[in-house]
Amino acid sequence: MPGFKKVVLGHGSGGRLSRELVEQVFLKSFSNSALRLLEDSAEVKLGGLTLAFTTDSYVVTPVEFPGADIGRVAVCGTVNDLAVKGARPAALSAGFILEEGFPADLLLRITASMRRAAREAGVNIVTGDTKVVEKGKADGIFINTSGVGLIPAGRSLTSAQVKSGDVIIVSGGLADHGVAVMNARSKLGLEGGIKSDAAPLNGLIESALRSPGVRAMRDITRGGFATVLNEVSGACGLSAVVEENSVPVSPATANACAMLGLDPMYVANEGKIALFVAPAAAERVLKALRSHRYGRKAAIVGRMIKEKKPQVRLNTSIGGSRVMLMLEGEQLPRIC
Amino acid sequence: MPGFKKVVLGHGSGGRLSRELVEQVFLKSFSNSALRLLEDSAEVKLGGLTLAFTTDSYVVTPVEFPGADIGRVAVCGTVNDLAVKGARPAALSAGFILEEGFPADLLLRITASMRRAAREAGVNIVTGDTKVVEKGKADGIFINTSGVGLIPAGRSLTSAQVKSGDVIIVSGGLADHGVAVMNARSKLGLEGGIKSDAAPLNGLIESALRSPGVRAMRDITRGGFATVLNEVSGACGLSAVVEENSVPVSPATANACAMLGLDPMYVANEGKIALFVAPAAAERVLKALRSHRYGRKAAIVGRMIKEKKPQVRLNTSIGGSRVMLMLEGEQLPRIC
Repeated sequence: MPGFKKVVLGHGSGGRLSRELVEQVFLKSFSNSALRLLEDSAEVKLGGLTLAFTTDSYVVTPVEFPGADIGRVAVCGTVNDLAVKGARPAALSAGFILEEGFPADLLLRITASMRRAAREAGVNIVTGDTKVVEKGKADGIFINTSGVGLIPAGRSLTSAQVKSGDVIIVSGGLADHGVAVMNARSKLGLEGGIKSDAAPLNGLIESALRSPGVRAMRDITRGGFATVLNEVSGACGLSAVVEENSVPVSPATANACAMLGLDPMYVANEGKIALFVAPAAAERVLKALRSHRYGRKAAIVGRMIKEKKPQVRLNTSIGGSRVMLMLEGEQLPRIC
Repeated sequence: MPGFKKVVLGHGSGGRLSRELVEQVFLKSFSNSALRLLEDSAEVKLGGLTLAFTTDSYVVTPVEFPGADIGRVAVCGTVNDLAVKGARPAALSAGFILEEGFPADLLLRITASMRRAAREAGVNIVTGDTKVVEKGKADGIFINTSGVGLIPAGRSLTSAQVKSGDVIIVSGGLADHGVAVMNARSKLGLEGGIKSDAAPLNGLIESALRSPGVRAMRDITRGGFATVLNEVSGACGLSAVVEENSVPVSPATANACAMLGLDPMYVANEGKIALFVAPAAAERVLKALRSHRYGRKAAIVGRMIKEKKPQVRLNTSIGGSRVMLMLEGEQLPRIC
């Protein structure tokens, strides 16, 4: 039996409880080599090709918020899960669960937004499904997107192959998405025009991969940057050491986080990736990222190092140092 | 704007209203050649291969019922959507939306059932996702499964290529799944041990495809056999004429349908397919189906014929004839 009796919100956080659910239920039931890696996409060998395959369901509330909506997030999230594995997105699916009474005009706005995001990513939504449940049995709209992509021969990006000395790069300012959704949900009226960063990053990622040296990439979504670092540290057995001063967070978002008691290291993004790069390649990769519209604020933020007991550590702006664990509990439910 | 203001249950029926939703919202937003075919899976050309790609969300209630559960249905439904396009299933994804408070032991039973169904189909669940929503914002558990398969070179199964004179075969008795779920949901206490037929049919389908002559296959799920016939008739421009006496329905299921006022031609199955076969190949294909455990009751039930105004017609057991339209409204919500 699993170590819990009932599902709690934290099981959907992307953090430690999600990890427990995956290990105690899904890995136990479905165990196979592709799933065990727990990367953003699974690799599937088929007819001599290496495919990437990924799925995500989206339950974000409200469904529209500054900068994006559930449809844009659903398309970008799945495109990015493919792209961080080095895959070129080939096709997306869209599965809708609608609550009876959902307004047709809102549905059409959401699907139009999906189309725009898919077009920007250069991929088609080729197959779909719709289920409708009675009023009160769902919350408006839930969307699942799955995606298939082709990983070009010779490309291999996995967290396990990150090496000591590798440089950690983030592709831009953190925490905008989570703060924008919270602001819209709670009608906090925060100033500064904070918008969700939801964006398809396959173009940015192709730029970064043009020069060799990128060993792994992760999509920084639920659980935030701290959780991604913990996952990568766990997979490669190295410590991640990050300089707080180097981590880009916009002033408006930093202020909002301070007001809300949120740590930007744990807040979800929908258009940011972490890259783990061989030291000799770091400046070249940084330059490539910065030359793309979605990577202008990319920054080197830390390093992977070999230590007896691997951990994720933040050297703070006031000269201290603290260990960052995976996200505990659930600070921002239904953020994606 | 779509021709409706709000989503109604019938938009999830698989019948006429589902078709309208697809045409007025999804095709309008996402239009591309693969999606426009509206087959059970989309064909995706990639690196010289032809893949099949499909998605379905499952919202069936109750989640456990005689013969199957939401997990088994989710795996079988997606395996079958791949297989009817001639694809060999290569990998599945599983996306869970859980309501806070969902019992861990029930979740584990469902995932164990998914594993058994996947094993029987010879496919792995390689990637997954879990979201949790607050109590009251979903109905226990919703599961999305998507699937990727490889269509062997030279195989092409599409409804558009069905020809006049082609024989219509169903792989077994209809309507068991829908009646079993209704019986469990409404605690009707129907006798006869009616069980869901949910089963992975890729083995059965490979047997049928060993001899040439199969032009198209469809998974007979939501909307039932009558709706599948209407979809194929629409795609190939031919009439479908079915002999009621030839359509296999078990006596217990036929009795239950009569009591409940259900027409077995419109009730969902999760382990039955319709095949459209060149006349010269029909007996051979029938024999292949009957030699498989999931096709013992396979039967030739009708023919496709050229008529000025294509329609789907049932020659009834009492000597009459009636037109069968697509499913109207929604007689059995949340059956899959």
